[in-house]
Amino acid sequence: MRTLVDLNADAGESFGRWTLGSDEQLIPLVTSVNIACGWHAGDPATMHRTLSLAREAGVSVGAHPGLPDLAGFGRRAMALTPKEAAEACLYQFGALRGIADHVGVPVNHVKPHGALYGLTLRDESVADAVVDAVATAAPDTNVVLLAGPTAQRVWDNGYPVVREAFADLDYDDNGHIVIEPVPRAKSPQQCAEQAMAILRGELVSMNGRTLDVDADTICVHGDRPNAAEIAETIRSRFEEAGVETAPMATVLAKRQ
Amino acid sequence: MRTLVDLNADAGESFGRWTLGSDEQLIPLVTSVNIACGWHAGDPATMHRTLSLAREAGVSVGAHPGLPDLAGFGRRAMALTPKEAAEACLYQFGALRGIADHVGVPVNHVKPHGALYGLTLRDESVADAVVDAVATAAPDTNVVLLAGPTAQRVWDNGYPVVREAFADLDYDDNGHIVIEPVPRAKSPQQCAEQAMAILRGELVSMNGRTLDVDADTICVHGDRPNAAEIAETIRSRFEEAGVETAPMATVLAKRQ
Amino acid sequence: MRTLVDLNADAGESFGRWTLGSDEQLIPLVTSVNIACGWHAGDPATMHRTLSLAREAGVSVGAHPGLPDLAGFGRRAMALTPKEAAEACLYQFGALRGIADHVGVPVNHVKPHGALYGLTLRDESVADAVVDAVATAAPDTNVVLLAGPTAQRVWDNGYPVVREAFADLDYDDNGHIVIEPVPRAKSPQQCAEQAMAILRGELVSMNGRTLDVDADTICVHGDRPNAAEIAETIRSRFEEAGVETAPMATVLAKRQ
Amino acid sequence: MRTLVDLNADAGESFGRWTLGSDEQLIPLVTSVNIACGWHAGDPATMHRTLSLAREAGVSVGAHPGLPDLAGFGRRAMALTPKEAAEACLYQFGALRGIADHVGVPVNHVKPHGALYGLTLRDESVADAVVDAVATAAPDTNVVLLAGPTAQRVWDNGYPVVREAFADLDYDDNGHIVIEPVPRAKSPQQCAEQAMAILRGELVSMNGRTLDVDADTICVHGDRPNAAEIAETIRSRFEEAGVETAPMATVLAKRQ
Repeated sequence: MRTLVDLNADAGESFGRWTLGSDEQLIPLVTSVNIACGWHAGDPATMHRTLSLAREAGVSVGAHPGLPDLAGFGRRAMALTPKEAAEACLYQFGALRGIADHVGVPVNHVKPHGALYGLTLRDESVADAVVDAVATAAPDTNVVLLAGPTAQRVWDNGYPVVREAFADLDYDDNGHIVIEPVPRAKSPQQCAEQAMAILRGELVSMNGRTLDVDADTICVHGDRPNAAEIAETIRSRFEEAGVETAPMATVLAKRQ
Repeated sequence: MRTLVDLNADAGESFGRWTLGSDEQLIPLVTSVNIACGWHAGDPATMHRTLSLAREAGVSVGAHPGLPDLAGFGRRAMALTPKEAAEACLYQFGALRGIADHVGVPVNHVKPHGALYGLTLRDESVADAVVDAVATAAPDTNVVLLAGPTAQRVWDNGYPVVREAFADLDYDDNGHIVIEPVPRAKSPQQCAEQAMAILRGELVSMNGRTLDVDADTICVHGDRPNAAEIAETIRSRFEEAGVETAPMATVLAKRQ
Repeated sequence: MRTLVDLNADAGESFGRWTLGSDEQLIPLVTSVNIACGWHAGDPATMHRTLSLAREAGVSVGAHPGLPDLAGFGRRAMALTPKEAAEACLYQFGALRGIADHVGVPVNHVKPHGALYGLTLRDESVADAVVDAVATAAPDTNVVLLAGPTAQRVWDNGYPVVREAFADLDYDDNGHIVIEPVPRAKSPQQCAEQAMAILRGELVSMNGRTLDVDADTICVHGDRPNAAEIAETIRSRFEEAGVETAPMATVLAKRQ
Repeated sequence: MRTLVDLNADAGESFGRWTLGSDEQLIPLVTSVNIACGWHAGDPATMHRTLSLAREAGVSVGAHPGLPDLAGFGRRAMALTPKEAAEACLYQFGALRGIADHVGVPVNHVKPHGALYGLTLRDESVADAVVDAVATAAPDTNVVLLAGPTAQRVWDNGYPVVREAFADLDYDDNGHIVIEPVPRAKSPQQCAEQAMAILRGELVSMNGRTLDVDADTICVHGDRPNAAEIAETIRSRFEEAGVETAPMATVLAKRQ
């Protein structure tokens, strides 16, 4: 069983007049946050505020670039070419870093959001383009991909990819996550069970099939109504089980 | 008379399916380019292409952040607070730098575009907020402001501000530029005359009033139909007059 | 004292993944709703849902066009020309009517939102252009303007303008409302007092100056946290005082 | 052979500062225009200007709604639900009609643009939802779909659908058009040949397969560089062959 893992959450998903998530409660409970960068959620003021919260909490920061679809929250698939996907990630990663440099926080990782994340799974050339673009622009920045064959292949090609699994999403038999357009509250206990199953390598699909998933980081969705409660329950369970949490870069460093 | 000056032009002002300007011709004629960053013009693919052109031409690159007003090309005034203006600059500067790091080109300056540039003139606290934000986030990056009292005050406060004058715009008696929403072709000879007048400190307003303008850089608008011809004519005139051109950072270094 | 008045509220101010206001509670409490049309808030799905709520509640529907500024919720001033302001109203009014025709609800009025409303106050040619554009495109559709000299002048010119006053906003000595970027909860009793003062023609400014305000409709902001409670309190107060409420077209019909 | 057909072109595809197409030349050469409505191209001022051109030319007007993807010109596929696709059409159709009512021009048809048009081909429930939404909101307004099985099925269900074929696009063996992200100049003679082949029911795919296509209207893309020349050549060819052109509503009326 894994005894060291990163716990990450999406944050900064408000936009202008609209508030979403409970970043103040959630951010101190995780070891890494993925901050929305303006295309599917997040505006510069929200990014600024979220970066400040992360700095105060001492949490590692990453960019959470999405598709250019504010009305769809980046959760509607969109046919970007690999080059367009890579440029979208560079643009948004850079934008966050511009504000982060002002706040005094490094941006350590890039995790594509929603349907852009989905695109890296369904189209290998998108995953390659994104990973390669980030590696060229910022060699010390890790890219987060779903734990599975694509992430493994990219890792084998020499890129510092972080393998992610989800405590709060269902998996199909292919090991793909089932994205909910509007996440609802979920049982914190069940999410904690799933997190532990991931660490033990015993994650099962909706149909009961055991999946071959080995993850460096476990995600909780920030826009789930009871996200903070879920994160807290997972942390308690980890403590009971002697599982340590640390930012994904630390976890990755011990992986070689 | 000044004998060393930077010649700058706005570039990368296409957007998606729409083309504007003649960057291929114009960029090699100047010593600095200001590249649009997606809010008033420019999309990631256009930014990428323009950065590559600048690298090939060996021209110094800056960010050209604008207001969030694509339909108005960032030329309609908008009541941003100083904090919002500063965040807009950090976001767009960072976004360009994200792609520039991939292309392998440094981003050396930030020049607000259109009505955001106008805002730095009409509201001193906007100028201060923008300059301070850039200085905190990227200490080696210069901010370009209109040559005049605001730029002087900011310089006196210890910030590395580049003073700009315009070869292709009219000035009012207060030394403010008169912005054209849609620039038309102008006489290249007249623009070259105005550039020389700026170097001699003899720039005059529309009403014939001599203005106290001392500039480190002279601008040609990239979306003026004959921009390349204007730039070429100015360069010839500079050569005849023994005026050297160099990127704004070089000009600034000799200013102390 | 006026004994017949319309009570209106802004609604449909959610956007995509983000929820704002409590339309289900608020809409049945008023006689007219102004529905956001996508530029400052509201997307087609939200417009559709809000129109259905209004139809069920039997409430009169109007368009609430705003500036093209989603991140600023249309509350940041923007220098539109009169022609641009008029086209913005026609576009958004038409968009709402397109969906309303599908739902089977007429769109009876147009009320500019936020800083676009402010623009009709500060620039008479904007008010004229908007009113004239709507009158040409849809002669039976009323335009709502702040009760005061501009509205009076437009009415005298023969246009069916509805004069509005605010139960939940402060007024300055010029009779102009003071817009809050993010409205906070307000005392429902105080708002009901202000509504009654409007009906009696005794509205006072923040400095205690009595204002010459005669209104056909009284507004409650839908994005104020306790908007529904305020509307309910105003209604009770109206009942006690024998004041009747009716859609603005009915109120206008009795005005001649 | 058909001897009566509508010739349609996309128009109003400029946006703000950016110009695309040559509407002044093209519009008088066709019998129907499809005007962009702001989501993939076209802003209210451009819509206004294009509607005025159509009125002057006496050409029938339709709405050309697209996906919410300005950077991709609506040509990147996007996973809208049938309901979202229908609402997108109603919103944009209504927006155009709002301005058209001011100009004094009726909006007679709705033709989805680019990847939204593609969506009606690949997903029957999208075609049904769009057609049904328009029929409910504006019973006299025709929806344009690609001539083929989907259009036929919708027609058989009692909806007034206009069957379209393309003079300037290649077809695959399934009778689907091959969309070019950025159309290039094409031989006007070849386009005129293809238009005549359509009328004779002898259109062939890229692989030489004869397709069963019977069209009420033939389209020329407005953003093809030599669009006006193509339209002129087709018209001459039609005249030589005794083919009459008329707005699509007229063609449809003779179809029963």
